[in-house]
Amino acid sequence: MKLSEIGEEKLIAKLLKTHKIPASAEYLPVGAGDDAAVISSGSACSYTIVATDMLSEGIDYRDDIITPYYLGWKSAAVNISDIAAMGGSPTWTLVSLGFKQDTEFDYLEAFYTGLTDCCSKYGSVIIGGDMNSVINENTISITQMGSIEPKLLIRRSGAEPGDLLFVTGYIGQSRAGLELLFKNGLQSVQSKYETLMKAHIMPIPRVYEANILAKTKMVKAMMDVSDGLGSDLPKLCSASGVGASVYAESICLSEDLKRAAQELKLNPLEIAISGGEDFELLFAAAPGDAASIIDIFSSSTDTPLHVIGEFTENGLSIIHSDGSKGNLVSGWDHFHNKNS
Amino acid sequence: MKLSEIGEEKLIAKLLKTHKIPASAEYLPVGAGDDAAVISSGSACSYTIVATDMLSEGIDYRDDIITPYYLGWKSAAVNISDIAAMGGSPTWTLVSLGFKQDTEFDYLEAFYTGLTDCCSKYGSVIIGGDMNSVINENTISITQMGSIEPKLLIRRSGAEPGDLLFVTGYIGQSRAGLELLFKNGLQSVQSKYETLMKAHIMPIPRVYEANILAKTKMVKAMMDVSDGLGSDLPKLCSASGVGASVYAESICLSEDLKRAAQELKLNPLEIAISGGEDFELLFAAAPGDAASIIDIFSSSTDTPLHVIGEFTENGLSIIHSDGSKGNLVSGWDHFHNKNS
Repeated sequence: MKLSEIGEEKLIAKLLKTHKIPASAEYLPVGAGDDAAVISSGSACSYTIVATDMLSEGIDYRDDIITPYYLGWKSAAVNISDIAAMGGSPTWTLVSLGFKQDTEFDYLEAFYTGLTDCCSKYGSVIIGGDMNSVINENTISITQMGSIEPKLLIRRSGAEPGDLLFVTGYIGQSRAGLELLFKNGLQSVQSKYETLMKAHIMPIPRVYEANILAKTKMVKAMMDVSDGLGSDLPKLCSASGVGASVYAESICLSEDLKRAAQELKLNPLEIAISGGEDFELLFAAAPGDAASIIDIFSSSTDTPLHVIGEFTENGLSIIHSDGSKGNLVSGWDHFHNKNS
Repeated sequence: MKLSEIGEEKLIAKLLKTHKIPASAEYLPVGAGDDAAVISSGSACSYTIVATDMLSEGIDYRDDIITPYYLGWKSAAVNISDIAAMGGSPTWTLVSLGFKQDTEFDYLEAFYTGLTDCCSKYGSVIIGGDMNSVINENTISITQMGSIEPKLLIRRSGAEPGDLLFVTGYIGQSRAGLELLFKNGLQSVQSKYETLMKAHIMPIPRVYEANILAKTKMVKAMMDVSDGLGSDLPKLCSASGVGASVYAESICLSEDLKRAAQELKLNPLEIAISGGEDFELLFAAAPGDAASIIDIFSSSTDTPLHVIGEFTENGLSIIHSDGSKGNLVSGWDHFHNKNS
């Protein structure tokens, strides 16, 4: 059977099962299956968080859609976001690059500038890596380390029925930016839809916001939206052993997204649900803590925060304003080659 | 200017310089430029070691030369070897795979079995990773973590003029195995030159040997031979600010290597010097400590240990049995696409 017939999630589940890759163990509070692994060896006052993410040319990015500077930024940002998703702070970055031999040094230089700019902004230092050559497609593999106080760590697994479902910022922005880039190219988008384009090529990892949320000690489960709400919420639910209902009208759509959807002749809500790479934080908290969380959050940052649904015993549905129920559409799957 | 015109080592040096990637810093006893980075944050009684290495299809391996099981083993081994090179013990492994969509699940399964077998043998646990799709060539990126007592850590930078140059095992074995595999294919080599073939497809990271050496506290500088003696010794010398003389007749050539070189019509000494991927340990120690090191080492392991030269004030040469001096030929460079 080919990998494309199995799909990314089932593939990982099969490997974890057969090879006994631990979900947690002594010295390993969080193993495979969360945004990042968490190691407790070392100091009692700090856990080490580790995440790794690969970007392949032609699959995860295209050089006609993203400049090398922003590709460098994004490569760091998507990994730093995984540290934020646990509530942690980035510390160290390792960079493995497989680049074609005829790559111009200026390209590599611009890539590295974007990468180090993003690392510096979020407090991470590049400490090593590997420089490789490849034949056809450039490949970027980053390993990001971080740290967190044990009592502040947020896993995917703590949501309970009745908890509210929160999301930071606006979702669907990155996907709308990508669709515009595909349609109109880098130059034309830049002036008209700068916010959406930036959401796609220069995503902002929510490190600061995650730190605020972790310190409230009221967030029960969290992850970042990397594959799209429709794909990531089921993962959060599965890890917590719960279901969820999303209220369609509570999903805040930005004015830019609505405008772009009209131009693209796409359904804005569908973009918001199926679009990945927003790197916003998706989290659960008890209804009784909602007011405090919103209060603390909004007094510390301008980043929007929305309650978009609630966790249930089981099932996953989207409830429209007329009361009708639908299935959440899924997001990105590397081996099913689809995004809807 | 293209990457192929610059070459791997100069490329890395340029990036480190422009982007101020630290060679060491507070909390970072070893940064970029050694076999692995070493982090001191956390416990006072243990440093964390981190290394990362990428393998690209068509460049670092070919599926007609290595089976998926051995590819998995080797992917883990080359990274674990970087931990050994610092004197450390492997702890955690992260695995990022970029595999084509039409890859058979059985291939991935065999790959993972080889990978986990190697990790288990050397005490490392897989704690996470990423599963990606690629268009043309499979890519494997491993990040390996390890630990070491601070006082036992061995850097590349401690060799002094007058120190002796040691190497474990036999070098050139992997390269000879590769040449035979290229010439005769996997099946015919298997029976006739099993040791050489195994050296190439199932390298043994010298974790046990490195631990013995670290505990003697007499090893002043160390690295693993991954790109070949002719390429790696200059790196050790450069990090230590010294030169070296290698005695050609002290380089122990295995009987298998001599036999293979005859069949391949190649110079066995040249294979030993230019051939990479042996993952033997190359290290420096004071002449006065040599007898103790050899005694401790040989009473703990059957792995051979040879003194093959000495460190000098500067320069790099090979001295032949007739007293004539030559230049060390260099090993593998990813961006000069050569191995001689």
